[in-house]
Amino acid sequence: MSYCSKAYNEPSKPTVVTSTIPGPESKKQIEQLNENFDARPVYFICDYEKSQGNYLADVDGNVLLDVYAQIASIALGYNNPDLIKAAQSPEMIRSLIERPALGNFPGKDFNDILKKVLKIAPKGQSKVWSALSGADANELAFKAAFVYYRAKERGGFDVKHSEEELSSVMVNQAPGAPNLAVLSFKKAFHGRLFASGSVTRSKPVHKLDFPAFEWPQAEYPYYKYPLAENEEYNKKEDERCLAIVEQLIKEWPTTKGAKVAALIIEPIQSEGGDNHASAYFLQSLRDLTTKHNVVYIVDEVQTGLGATGTLWCHEQANITPPPDLVTFSKKCQSAGYFFHDDKFIPALPYSIFNTWCGNPSSMIIAGAIGEVIQRENLLEQANRVGDYLMAKLQKVAEKYPQHLGRLRGKATFIAFDLESAETRNKLLTLMKSNGCNVGGCAEASVRLRPTLTFEEKHADIFVEALEKSLASL
Amino acid sequence: MSYCSKAYNEPSKPTVVTSTIPGPESKKQIEQLNENFDARPVYFICDYEKSQGNYLADVDGNVLLDVYAQIASIALGYNNPDLIKAAQSPEMIRSLIERPALGNFPGKDFNDILKKVLKIAPKGQSKVWSALSGADANELAFKAAFVYYRAKERGGFDVKHSEEELSSVMVNQAPGAPNLAVLSFKKAFHGRLFASGSVTRSKPVHKLDFPAFEWPQAEYPYYKYPLAENEEYNKKEDERCLAIVEQLIKEWPTTKGAKVAALIIEPIQSEGGDNHASAYFLQSLRDLTTKHNVVYIVDEVQTGLGATGTLWCHEQANITPPPDLVTFSKKCQSAGYFFHDDKFIPALPYSIFNTWCGNPSSMIIAGAIGEVIQRENLLEQANRVGDYLMAKLQKVAEKYPQHLGRLRGKATFIAFDLESAETRNKLLTLMKSNGCNVGGCAEASVRLRPTLTFEEKHADIFVEALEKSLASL
Repeated sequence: MSYCSKAYNEPSKPTVVTSTIPGPESKKQIEQLNENFDARPVYFICDYEKSQGNYLADVDGNVLLDVYAQIASIALGYNNPDLIKAAQSPEMIRSLIERPALGNFPGKDFNDILKKVLKIAPKGQSKVWSALSGADANELAFKAAFVYYRAKERGGFDVKHSEEELSSVMVNQAPGAPNLAVLSFKKAFHGRLFASGSVTRSKPVHKLDFPAFEWPQAEYPYYKYPLAENEEYNKKEDERCLAIVEQLIKEWPTTKGAKVAALIIEPIQSEGGDNHASAYFLQSLRDLTTKHNVVYIVDEVQTGLGATGTLWCHEQANITPPPDLVTFSKKCQSAGYFFHDDKFIPALPYSIFNTWCGNPSSMIIAGAIGEVIQRENLLEQANRVGDYLMAKLQKVAEKYPQHLGRLRGKATFIAFDLESAETRNKLLTLMKSNGCNVGGCAEASVRLRPTLTFEEKHADIFVEALEKSLASL
Repeated sequence: MSYCSKAYNEPSKPTVVTSTIPGPESKKQIEQLNENFDARPVYFICDYEKSQGNYLADVDGNVLLDVYAQIASIALGYNNPDLIKAAQSPEMIRSLIERPALGNFPGKDFNDILKKVLKIAPKGQSKVWSALSGADANELAFKAAFVYYRAKERGGFDVKHSEEELSSVMVNQAPGAPNLAVLSFKKAFHGRLFASGSVTRSKPVHKLDFPAFEWPQAEYPYYKYPLAENEEYNKKEDERCLAIVEQLIKEWPTTKGAKVAALIIEPIQSEGGDNHASAYFLQSLRDLTTKHNVVYIVDEVQTGLGATGTLWCHEQANITPPPDLVTFSKKCQSAGYFFHDDKFIPALPYSIFNTWCGNPSSMIIAGAIGEVIQRENLLEQANRVGDYLMAKLQKVAEKYPQHLGRLRGKATFIAFDLESAETRNKLLTLMKSNGCNVGGCAEASVRLRPTLTFEEKHADIFVEALEKSLASL
């Protein structure tokens, strides 16, 4: 019996009872919510009590197969019994009502909570710093990178800050507040605060009207599919993009007066259109960053925790030596960054610090999710089901070549492109009417982000709904 | 019977069993924690299971009267039965295990959760946007301010972004990424991310090595105490600082090419040394910001939720019209900003948005805390106990004028200054040995941040420990 069958009382198929989604009850409640909160982006109002496993219920009685999973944030499925147990544990109650200032006053159970989070750390990473969201995790990783970079510039980790640094920093000027940059890639998404927003490059709406650091953007390889038939082209594409990266690292200090202290990359650009980077590209970035003394940050906020078939997507590239900092959030519930080199612990205590230093409640859930993934072999399942789903989608793509292109993926982390934004949006609406909650990315892509308990039977339902929707486009 | 006596099984006084704090067991566990996490700032390892009300237990068996309360983040006390109930509620379990993407897929209970948070909103504020920490709340408030400011500059909220804005923003340049500034005050603390860090001005360690926006800093009034005896001096100090604010708003566009879009202020600078701003100063800032078209943001992250004797500290200044955005976190557990004007909802949906849009678990706790404060008249208690404590502290100050100066406060939100950092730090250590966990701020200040269930009997214990500590300085 599969874990999904043991854990959940799932329906055998989706139920759609309203002619459009959102249905009338959702619409009513969206209007009420809008009195207090900007509810314009709401798709529908969920009934989480009635949701089970891979099925998301709404307040109108619709029950959809969910292959979007709260923007890739639900690892195991709705109403998971192992997580309910974790949520009812005494350590959870304590963490909720006695939210500690973890850096100053950690509880006696904090180290065990951390150790469980570290059990799901990427290979080569042995320490963790906790944060509150993907954006927060990335910005804290930038801080660690900047401190490290400046210590090296200063001539060592024991060299103290100069008087000039101590005074200039208070008026936000160099050298105390150095003019350093983080390099990112076109179409990247790394969050929406001010530094994370400065490296995010996917859509204007994420950035418009906000001051930003003028940091360099390189180009992310854009491959032809299927990969096996386009090796030569794609290798050239890798080389083209690598040359841009190196050029920017070299020229930015001269053209913009800012040294590139760090580089951040998603192993698969998710919000930006499910663009994949090859193992060769990711390893070459390691070589380039080492050569130019740039901190290498891998953003696994969306790709992390198993959907690509390994716990962390970049592990498949076997990057050697491993990246310096790996950031996480979403499916892990808790957020932060993993690292292996003690040099990323700032020489000054309190340099990277804040009141809460993360959220122990989220960390407890993250640890429990990790235990289930390992106990139930859910990585093996993601690979198996991913292969099964990909084979079926290839057939659909052959049948609808006018609509469905650039099919790509790792395990269940799959995407394809429609011919236009309009058709893509129409397809997403049709998919809801046909019982599946699916998300888009970039202008015209569809991204599949099912939970790790997604099985062949769910893949069958999804593909059937997809064919039905494509037929009526 | 007081709420404290009903709710908690508190000891009658502190217990100190180790000769130094941290004791041997804390030290051992700090070392173990340091294997996985930067544990240098840890004071001691807490036993939250054994903590009760205003008493914080550690793993060595010490039980301290806690007047620091997780850096001002515990509203009611440890192991509060009302919060335990909230933590065990079905809506809490759901929010923990089905962490929703609140902006897209809110649950049916989300509006009720929000409404409870809005019950504790400052007078004049009717809407809320949720965030994850104080820094996050401030940065989201900046985003709202920038969008609003640019819409006005563009000539209206219906005027679309230009093609030039849409393209320039993707390379982080104006006009899409405008060169706008947020004005803050010397010694301010508003968080430690990159934009919040740019307006934070308390200590170099918060800022060193991090790139920052070059934004203006004004001066925060520094009053002479007691206030009643220094009215003329303090009024002049207000005028001096107001003139600097206006000058900066006027000159920054010319000297630095950046218009001041927003001003952010703490009604009492907390981390920066418990510097208070008068009602006159806060109202004058409203007048200045209105005159110069600057968004007025009040940061109530540390001052919010009752310890100053009103739910929100700035309410005591009766600012008219109310400030545009009021940010909160810490004692409210949940974080975000309150506002009243729909114009702060961006014209573009998804302009202020992220995966989680806040943490419903924290919002549930915030709502429960608010209910207890109102039901149990804890504001009245904070005022009463604050007066009692202040009267006692005045006597201590008279007895030890060489050590204890500039006694100041509102309700239980009290601070005083020692003659030097060294003496202050020595006093904090002595206070632990004498059974009280107390925090410092700025260079030589002590800040009292007891919970809202702090009573006269606790004040007696605190003052006794203080006298004992001062005597042995």
